[in-house]
Amino acid sequence: MRAVTFSDGSISIDQHPDPTPGVGEVLVAIRAAGLNGADVLQRKGFYPAPAGSPPDIPGLEFAGEVVDLGPDAARFAIGERVMAIAGGGGQAELIAVHERALMPVPAAVDWAAAGGLPEVFTTAHDALFTQAALGSGERLLVHGAAGGVGTAAVQLAAAIGATTTATVRNEDSRAGVESLGATLVIEPEGFGEHGPFDVVLELVGGPNIAADVDALATGGRIVVIGVGGGAKAELNLLALMGKRGRIMASTLRARPLEEKAAALRAVERHVLPLFESGEIDVPIAATYPLEDAEAAYEHFTTPGKLGKVVLMAQPNGTVNG
Amino acid sequence: MRAVTFSDGSISIDQHPDPTPGVGEVLVAIRAAGLNGADVLQRKGFYPAPAGSPPDIPGLEFAGEVVDLGPDAARFAIGERVMAIAGGGGQAELIAVHERALMPVPAAVDWAAAGGLPEVFTTAHDALFTQAALGSGERLLVHGAAGGVGTAAVQLAAAIGATTTATVRNEDSRAGVESLGATLVIEPEGFGEHGPFDVVLELVGGPNIAADVDALATGGRIVVIGVGGGAKAELNLLALMGKRGRIMASTLRARPLEEKAAALRAVERHVLPLFESGEIDVPIAATYPLEDAEAAYEHFTTPGKLGKVVLMAQPNGTVNG
Repeated sequence: MRAVTFSDGSISIDQHPDPTPGVGEVLVAIRAAGLNGADVLQRKGFYPAPAGSPPDIPGLEFAGEVVDLGPDAARFAIGERVMAIAGGGGQAELIAVHERALMPVPAAVDWAAAGGLPEVFTTAHDALFTQAALGSGERLLVHGAAGGVGTAAVQLAAAIGATTTATVRNEDSRAGVESLGATLVIEPEGFGEHGPFDVVLELVGGPNIAADVDALATGGRIVVIGVGGGAKAELNLLALMGKRGRIMASTLRARPLEEKAAALRAVERHVLPLFESGEIDVPIAATYPLEDAEAAYEHFTTPGKLGKVVLMAQPNGTVNG
Repeated sequence: MRAVTFSDGSISIDQHPDPTPGVGEVLVAIRAAGLNGADVLQRKGFYPAPAGSPPDIPGLEFAGEVVDLGPDAARFAIGERVMAIAGGGGQAELIAVHERALMPVPAAVDWAAAGGLPEVFTTAHDALFTQAALGSGERLLVHGAAGGVGTAAVQLAAAIGATTTATVRNEDSRAGVESLGATLVIEPEGFGEHGPFDVVLELVGGPNIAADVDALATGGRIVVIGVGGGAKAELNLLALMGKRGRIMASTLRARPLEEKAAALRAVERHVLPLFESGEIDVPIAATYPLEDAEAAYEHFTTPGKLGKVVLMAQPNGTVNG
């Protein structure tokens, strides 16, 4: 199979051995695979793939068709449309994953959207609901709301009746974020004036933490899932105690199978019905063929886009399906 | 009634009007009242009493007998032994509090122990179990374990089958903390070598946070309920994300009645049976008559004691009970 391949910071499309599905695993012919910030970090050598994932093939999410079943795999039939998060290896033509790590693709979701859905909606759902227990009527602040996780979070919050303040640095992206259901879209500077907030989804990191705490409502929660702006934070513990606040930090990628599977079951139960009803969608900034991965990565790191950059793979018939 | 009275940093025993129990309230003739760190902060002017509490009478916990009932108060009968946390006003001869803010005193607990029980055991139970969800088999680190909350936490953790590493600065107090059920009692320096820890009870504050995060197990929780060592902390968010860790900061004192009452109901259910069976106890460093409050405060701030300093009040017959 062909796969996007990292080597010392460069990107190429190389041949790799076809994977074979093991016990409980499913072989998927990949149609679409979204790009994520972790891929860019991995390319730079900062974020190696976890054990069990290929060290040189990026891709934390993908969608495709089941083409082979390993022993005891029984959740999906050959030909079914599935999507998943993975520790890596999604930006390829084939991947073998445990069937508990797969979700069905709703009929209303096309391949490009399905390829860009699992990582950001699972991350956003896990952060907002499983971690922070965001409830209806609560006031959410999303930092960096024009990105993949941000646009997912804005839509999920709107769907459950929370009010969302969204910070978006690029002026051109603000109308798009508002159309996804944000109550108020603002520049990042001075966001605290629009508080207090019950939940803060922190995708920028260190530089925001002190102001996040100041803007927190009593009992508020800050969920840190990105540190693009830096990892070092200054924290006033007395201020956090006064708010009875919590700082929760999380990543999906490093979790063991059972925790990832539990997060996906929550997405199946609570998020996929919103896709089926058309209430939410995956904003797609652009799609690129697998061969043009270099251009896709370039686009991904360019500011001002709204939503996902997705690679489209065309299985080349080497699979035994 | 007489009460410990703060005025510009000085302590005196002054006369105050007897309180009258309002709707749902109970008048308690106080027998014993523990000292806490918050009293010392309040004396220095750093921690004013919350609204609804007397501004000049300290005392966050007390035990005594019910001597009068306000309208609709029905939970306790006159003469019953009760104890409670309060926003202040506990270091006095009388206090009127809502009946939902009271707990019964188990027969096995004497007045001195009952007066020093509510604040520290409610704080420790809330922090370890309601906030951090400490479970059997988990590894707990208690910083400053020789103090009131620390000795309560060590005993509660032992009672549910957690293993506890306790840091105690004063060498003379270490054997006592070990006898309360700590698995390992160490000096504070280099505590991280004894990790990883699933839960850290942070009573020292800022200077410990970076090392707390480093010593955290995957999914670990740091509960900050004291900042005696300073409030400013440096936090590496990437390290916290890697641990999928949480920092939870909390205070009991500022909580509204319904939240305090809920915390007390949890203590009634989970902690008072352990006192009834004799499994846990309130270590008492010393008791002082109310008149000797100055000496009690002096003792409280002297390092090297183990357990609570408690004021003993003798109702002087001015109440209508």
